[in-house]
Amino acid sequence: LKPPSQLIRFRSGACGGQTPYNSTKPSMLNVHLVPHTHDDVGWLKTVDQYYYGGRNYIQHAGVQYILDSVVSELQKDPARRFIYVETAFFHRWWSEQSAKTRNIVTQLVQEGRLEFVNGGWCMSDEASTHYSAVIDQMTLGLRFLNDTFGECGRPRVAWHIDPFGHAREHASIFAQMGYDGFFFGRLDYQDKGRRMKMKEMEMVWRASESLKPPTADLFTGVLPNGYNPPAGFCWDQSCSDDPVQDDPELEDYNVDDLVNKFISISKAQADVYKTNHIIMTMGSDFQYENAIPWYKNMDKLIHYVNARQKNGSAVNVLYSTPSCYLQELNLAKQIWPIKTDDFFPYADDAHDFWTGYFTSRPALKRYERLSNSLLQTCNQLEVLGGSQSRDGPFGKGDSETMRRAMAVAQHHDAVSGTEKQHVANDYAKRLGIGWDHCQVLVSNSLAALSGSNVPRVFCENLNISVCPLTEGSKRFSMNVYNPLARPISWSVHLPVNGSSYSVQDSNGMVIPVSKATQNLRRGRGYAKNELVFQVQAPPLGFSTYSIILLGRAGAPDEPKRAAPVSMQNKVRPTTPALYHYLAYVMCNCNCNCACVHMCVCVCQNSVVQEVRQQFSPWVSQVVRLYEGSRELELEWTIGPVPVDDGLGKEVITRLDSSISSAEYFYTDSNGREVLQRRKDYRPTWDLKQTEPVAGNYYPMNSRAFIKDKGSQLTVVTDRSQGVSSLNNGSLEIMLHRRLLYDDYRGVGEPLSEPGEFGDGLVVRGRLLLTLTPPETAADAHRPLAQGMVLQPLLSFQDGTPSAIFSALQASLPPAVHLLTLSQWDKDSVLLRLEHQYESSESKTYSKPVTVNLQKMFSTLKVVGASEMSLGANQWKANMTRLQWNTGNDAHIYTCSSHTSSTSSVASPQLISLHYIVHLIRNRGTAMFSF
Amino acid sequence: LKPPSQLIRFRSGACGGQTPYNSTKPSMLNVHLVPHTHDDVGWLKTVDQYYYGGRNYIQHAGVQYILDSVVSELQKDPARRFIYVETAFFHRWWSEQSAKTRNIVTQLVQEGRLEFVNGGWCMSDEASTHYSAVIDQMTLGLRFLNDTFGECGRPRVAWHIDPFGHAREHASIFAQMGYDGFFFGRLDYQDKGRRMKMKEMEMVWRASESLKPPTADLFTGVLPNGYNPPAGFCWDQSCSDDPVQDDPELEDYNVDDLVNKFISISKAQADVYKTNHIIMTMGSDFQYENAIPWYKNMDKLIHYVNARQKNGSAVNVLYSTPSCYLQELNLAKQIWPIKTDDFFPYADDAHDFWTGYFTSRPALKRYERLSNSLLQTCNQLEVLGGSQSRDGPFGKGDSETMRRAMAVAQHHDAVSGTEKQHVANDYAKRLGIGWDHCQVLVSNSLAALSGSNVPRVFCENLNISVCPLTEGSKRFSMNVYNPLARPISWSVHLPVNGSSYSVQDSNGMVIPVSKATQNLRRGRGYAKNELVFQVQAPPLGFSTYSIILLGRAGAPDEPKRAAPVSMQNKVRPTTPALYHYLAYVMCNCNCNCACVHMCVCVCQNSVVQEVRQQFSPWVSQVVRLYEGSRELELEWTIGPVPVDDGLGKEVITRLDSSISSAEYFYTDSNGREVLQRRKDYRPTWDLKQTEPVAGNYYPMNSRAFIKDKGSQLTVVTDRSQGVSSLNNGSLEIMLHRRLLYDDYRGVGEPLSEPGEFGDGLVVRGRLLLTLTPPETAADAHRPLAQGMVLQPLLSFQDGTPSAIFSALQASLPPAVHLLTLSQWDKDSVLLRLEHQYESSESKTYSKPVTVNLQKMFSTLKVVGASEMSLGANQWKANMTRLQWNTGNDAHIYTCSSHTSSTSSVASPQLISLHYIVHLIRNRGTAMFSF
Repeated sequence: LKPPSQLIRFRSGACGGQTPYNSTKPSMLNVHLVPHTHDDVGWLKTVDQYYYGGRNYIQHAGVQYILDSVVSELQKDPARRFIYVETAFFHRWWSEQSAKTRNIVTQLVQEGRLEFVNGGWCMSDEASTHYSAVIDQMTLGLRFLNDTFGECGRPRVAWHIDPFGHAREHASIFAQMGYDGFFFGRLDYQDKGRRMKMKEMEMVWRASESLKPPTADLFTGVLPNGYNPPAGFCWDQSCSDDPVQDDPELEDYNVDDLVNKFISISKAQADVYKTNHIIMTMGSDFQYENAIPWYKNMDKLIHYVNARQKNGSAVNVLYSTPSCYLQELNLAKQIWPIKTDDFFPYADDAHDFWTGYFTSRPALKRYERLSNSLLQTCNQLEVLGGSQSRDGPFGKGDSETMRRAMAVAQHHDAVSGTEKQHVANDYAKRLGIGWDHCQVLVSNSLAALSGSNVPRVFCENLNISVCPLTEGSKRFSMNVYNPLARPISWSVHLPVNGSSYSVQDSNGMVIPVSKATQNLRRGRGYAKNELVFQVQAPPLGFSTYSIILLGRAGAPDEPKRAAPVSMQNKVRPTTPALYHYLAYVMCNCNCNCACVHMCVCVCQNSVVQEVRQQFSPWVSQVVRLYEGSRELELEWTIGPVPVDDGLGKEVITRLDSSISSAEYFYTDSNGREVLQRRKDYRPTWDLKQTEPVAGNYYPMNSRAFIKDKGSQLTVVTDRSQGVSSLNNGSLEIMLHRRLLYDDYRGVGEPLSEPGEFGDGLVVRGRLLLTLTPPETAADAHRPLAQGMVLQPLLSFQDGTPSAIFSALQASLPPAVHLLTLSQWDKDSVLLRLEHQYESSESKTYSKPVTVNLQKMFSTLKVVGASEMSLGANQWKANMTRLQWNTGNDAHIYTCSSHTSSTSSVASPQLISLHYIVHLIRNRGTAMFSF
Repeated sequence: LKPPSQLIRFRSGACGGQTPYNSTKPSMLNVHLVPHTHDDVGWLKTVDQYYYGGRNYIQHAGVQYILDSVVSELQKDPARRFIYVETAFFHRWWSEQSAKTRNIVTQLVQEGRLEFVNGGWCMSDEASTHYSAVIDQMTLGLRFLNDTFGECGRPRVAWHIDPFGHAREHASIFAQMGYDGFFFGRLDYQDKGRRMKMKEMEMVWRASESLKPPTADLFTGVLPNGYNPPAGFCWDQSCSDDPVQDDPELEDYNVDDLVNKFISISKAQADVYKTNHIIMTMGSDFQYENAIPWYKNMDKLIHYVNARQKNGSAVNVLYSTPSCYLQELNLAKQIWPIKTDDFFPYADDAHDFWTGYFTSRPALKRYERLSNSLLQTCNQLEVLGGSQSRDGPFGKGDSETMRRAMAVAQHHDAVSGTEKQHVANDYAKRLGIGWDHCQVLVSNSLAALSGSNVPRVFCENLNISVCPLTEGSKRFSMNVYNPLARPISWSVHLPVNGSSYSVQDSNGMVIPVSKATQNLRRGRGYAKNELVFQVQAPPLGFSTYSIILLGRAGAPDEPKRAAPVSMQNKVRPTTPALYHYLAYVMCNCNCNCACVHMCVCVCQNSVVQEVRQQFSPWVSQVVRLYEGSRELELEWTIGPVPVDDGLGKEVITRLDSSISSAEYFYTDSNGREVLQRRKDYRPTWDLKQTEPVAGNYYPMNSRAFIKDKGSQLTVVTDRSQGVSSLNNGSLEIMLHRRLLYDDYRGVGEPLSEPGEFGDGLVVRGRLLLTLTPPETAADAHRPLAQGMVLQPLLSFQDGTPSAIFSALQASLPPAVHLLTLSQWDKDSVLLRLEHQYESSESKTYSKPVTVNLQKMFSTLKVVGASEMSLGANQWKANMTRLQWNTGNDAHIYTCSSHTSSTSSVASPQLISLHYIVHLIRNRGTAMFSF
């Protein structure tokens, strides 16, 4: 981390002010023009295609030229401003620049003429992302800016102008990262209407019920025109608005008309905002590829509008940036309203709810979540295995490839599922390459830690019972790496062809591979049976299991027939009257659920009870209960969804119970805090519900529940999905969707997902259900969900090498989650510890806990630790944020800076502590070989 | 005229060579990349809209940004090159630039990094333009470049990359303007195929049968890809070709593929050209609005292709310009084939002949021609009337507005008729404004010359017998200004309501206004009669006629009925099987002509015989023979062309005669030299005729004829039209066309011309027919055609002021045409004299003549004269051009420089002498008042 450099960027007083073109005037209406581009890190084209401008026949967009052109134009006038957002693109562009250009850009940044806002690797989706991956992608981007530009490169403003609804947890993250404010573009049209009327377009978002204000308070502004310029003032090459035609000899001279129109728009906008400062976003998707028309015409606009001041006009236009605008709002000393809920679901009109995308591309959503798990493991093993991890017996490995692939995948047209198919394929491919690199690193690291150089295989198709090694070997060993800071137990299903195995330290039982799974494999494997057993692994470490074939191949016990369980899986066919099936927007039909005949098999042994349900040729489910477990597992398999009837389909599972949930249900925000939801209701305004189904869907990142006084039914999921509760006691989760029509929101193709075989993607997933008293529900679902997010990594070796390892001296306290452990530079690591309980959800765990960093690791010696902001781009001690008056608060909070030693206290709320830990490796002391 | 400045621009040796990126290598194949933009001076948008980038929803194009961006990018690397063509745009852009930018641009021009090619105000059409207007528009552009940049701004290369066929007269003009070479893009696909096979893509065009070579010899090259880059290498914002993706980590890395493809294309191109130099046009319509992608990718292309030289590649790519490329061709010392015919008609495939546009928008074509006549009169009267012309009793007038409007109207999507309707309206509007300015100037000048300040009216609707002054006045005077250097006589039809008038010095007869004309006026006038009489006017001067009403309003003599004349007007309906009616391309149908019933009236008096024919409600014609005239006048009126039958129509007039013309006919080239045409035949290659009608149409700018040993039927027209001879003794002229479908050549709308009243444009025009022995035909049609082009300007005053004036001491010899007399600067005028006969067309006039400049003018004293190139941007004495070896010539000609005194000899061929004449005004001596 670089020390804070000399601040040249302007931070107090009027915006810039170096030239008349960026001066504010206290007695006038100040219109802040913010030139910007919105560069999707993949959408209709892949991130690479967007960078270079390849495949322009799909969409004209080439980011390399945007930065070329903007840098060129900024130099022409010191008054001009530009903001840049997506570090994934900036980073690549920077790497191609000459020293000369770099110097120019550095100076532009230092002078505040080029300002970074948001600054993450991408602008993440808010509905389908997990906070862990969001923090990682932000850290990746912010670190590059900090390394490159120091303090002047640190974004002060979060900027989520395009995501389709806004999660409270994102606001909390931004606040904890030290942002002064946040702007976005999309919110429910009814909400926006009300806010305009009430002048509540700008507010303070109190983004946590657990954190003491203002820790998670974030000043939040709704932009006036999404993120576009006002109508008639788009001067990009992609627009067709008339330029400022100021030659009086010209046929189409339009200066007077344009100035009148601009002043009129400005005044109308000022009417719905509180202060005499308003913001206009001058740009849009991939704009400024040619910055000349934009700047040339804005120069003229500013000139001609301000020239009216001589004639008494009180409108003052200036080049500005979001941070300059924010500062003026801050200086205005207004009282701002408070917002405590979130901005889901998002509807852009009465019948277009953007809720279908909570489930879109369920396979990609799962692969992203699995990849996050692997990345955390990869990060940890890079630290734990030392330098051999990156260059060891299995070659060169790295975590950076996966880190970048994961960062790109957080984009709001990536894991969201709102991209074109070929782009979705590209995200998956990038993750796949990340897997390759991480698997080498993991192999190297495990070799170092276990002492065994026997090659490892990672069976990635275990979910369809395919693994050539376990299928064919008579004697093999399985390593179970646990990335959590507490010991785990885990149920394993391995495809085998024998009927009887001995499993060291466990009880392995064989059951037949289900018909559904056999059909699914389509030639990728032929294992007849599954070997099922429970494994344990130590915290931040691994155990090893040796498996030896006893019996020959043959059928295991015949499964017994049993009655259907009470949970049903249902298919909601869309009615023929509604042909619009939407990729962002959920099918807006008033659906009647149709019941389907099903076949059921039950398999039961000492390890597991399975009820296998086949609802139709393309819908099946396995209900599992493991010995000693309290949660029920639902493994659903859906697809290929048939569309030869001309109808797209959205498939849900509905969990009906006797819980008196009334109209309430609960969903998590980005996998962290939980928000209450209510049918046909919004906390902020008097909802006129126009869509009884789509208008009641919410994103579920890790869990959802319903409850009454006595019981809580909690569902933990393995990926982000859409969820609702449309009836008392019922919770429905959308699992898969296949559509035949585009939704006219830009993507230009229906969400059909043909899959590898062309007939429609088959998706398999898991839900974990717990039924508990409400008081102890969190005690169950918090660890359950963290275990689902950071699941053990299995690897297999021929023969029976065996080892056990833990990097911790002891488990961390149950309330503490080890969020991040990754190599920062040669002698330091980034460590994030998190109190994972909300302030009032657990009698047992919602309490302060202490962790002694010096006594934490077994193989690493901590020689120092420095506490950082959540984004790791600022010393926590230096973190100061703008203060905002919310009126109702007794006082204006000041930032409570938390100086730390190597002993850290995690408060009795959900809070993260983020350290750069300086290490001495203490090799070998905690390794046990057998 | 500025004296030639110090030449900094590189003129000998390899191209540029300052950097490795613009060096040629003698032993390699040198690929000259020529970055360029093609900026139509109006087409889908008006010239103003194109300049500013207005109405981008029609077409994305904004020239201001092209020049902004290119100048910015050129500065980034001295190797980069750009050419600019259309001075109409450059001039406007220059006027908006700061001194700093102007200095930068001047240096770029001096260093040859920004090179002007062609350099006229526009890139003129070649089929429908008159040489007089073409020379004017070129002069306007070249003068600006010369005034601004001196010698370094003088274009060396003519560049007509887009016009739809190429006129020999244009080549002759370019040669006489001192251009070293000429490049174009469009020629008949069969011709191109043959030339590629024979390596005759580059040639010497011997562009005159009268001028001694190499005076009108012009090195001419056919560009390989029209004016586009080779397929796959278009890197404009408007293109979708993949950029050079040279990051090896990128998914779509394509450097090897692109380099292989480029080398392969280069070698294939070299196979059809003669030398080891080839040219690639890197640009297209309105490209380089963002120059960054172009230059960035060309930089990389050059880098990566030339990097192959290390591995033995013999392909060398460089930034170049047409003049650099031309110079390399010149150094190659090849023998070049000779071309003597022209490049009409142009077909881009077997069934797409671009011949319909020879007639498209006949009203615009006429208005343009009339405007040229007014401009020449305006120019002359600006000189003759002195400074009072520009600021006199009627206010401020000028010729510059009309000069620019006319220059713009020469564009290949202007007078050609190939633009959108709203753009055609804009051209007409510009000309209309030019008329206003010129009419003030003319009024001022005539006031000075005649001594009468009585206001003048210019009755612009005389062609439909509308003129409020003559209709209502009992006593008025008509001024007849004659812009020719010889006396003229002219027949005048004035709308009147009286039945009897006295006309001073003439015999005025009254005939009734025809039914056809009455219908045409639609409320714009109600004159019952026309007063017909002959007028005379002195050379370069005027006469005045006083008209006094004698009888009251009433009907004149009843017209007599008579038999139809032998000339017939026919309508060619297009067959229902062919629905494609084309705006550039003539209807490609095999037509059968249908005869139509007609009604005929004959009016006859001592001044005129009229036969009035009505073929249908929308087709009529008047055949006139004036007393004492040898030519027959056909006044045709066509429209509104009905299309409610779902068929577009192209209306022709067919003149059938007993002349044994076999398959031959003759058409003029841009109003000057005449070329022989032959049905189903091209002089250059063995034609496979695919379109029996469209494939035989040629442009007729001023005249066409058929002949045999005894007789020649010559038709002189008042505007450019398409003409053919499909049968022995027959000549057909297309008069009007109205179509229902676009022709898919870009204009995007059918040529429907709704006209002022929305039901279809009505067009009226005149053809003059002479029947003479072939030997004396030119003696008749040369003056007839010049009189049609430069027709007298009539103006009317109430009362009977009277004056006569001639600016010449005497008529010029009949062979000499005064082409240009216009104010150059305060004390000098530009004078162009022209021998208007071809070398062998007249026994009487095809001889040398002498004009004594000092004795030429009556009111102006010539104190000096300096002979110029035709473009007036170079002293004739300094004019040297590259020499080309055509093998068959006995020797390589050198430029014969023609030093001049104030006495000039016009050779016995069609040649122009162009002077800057230095004057002392000799006011008043030659004015005669009555």
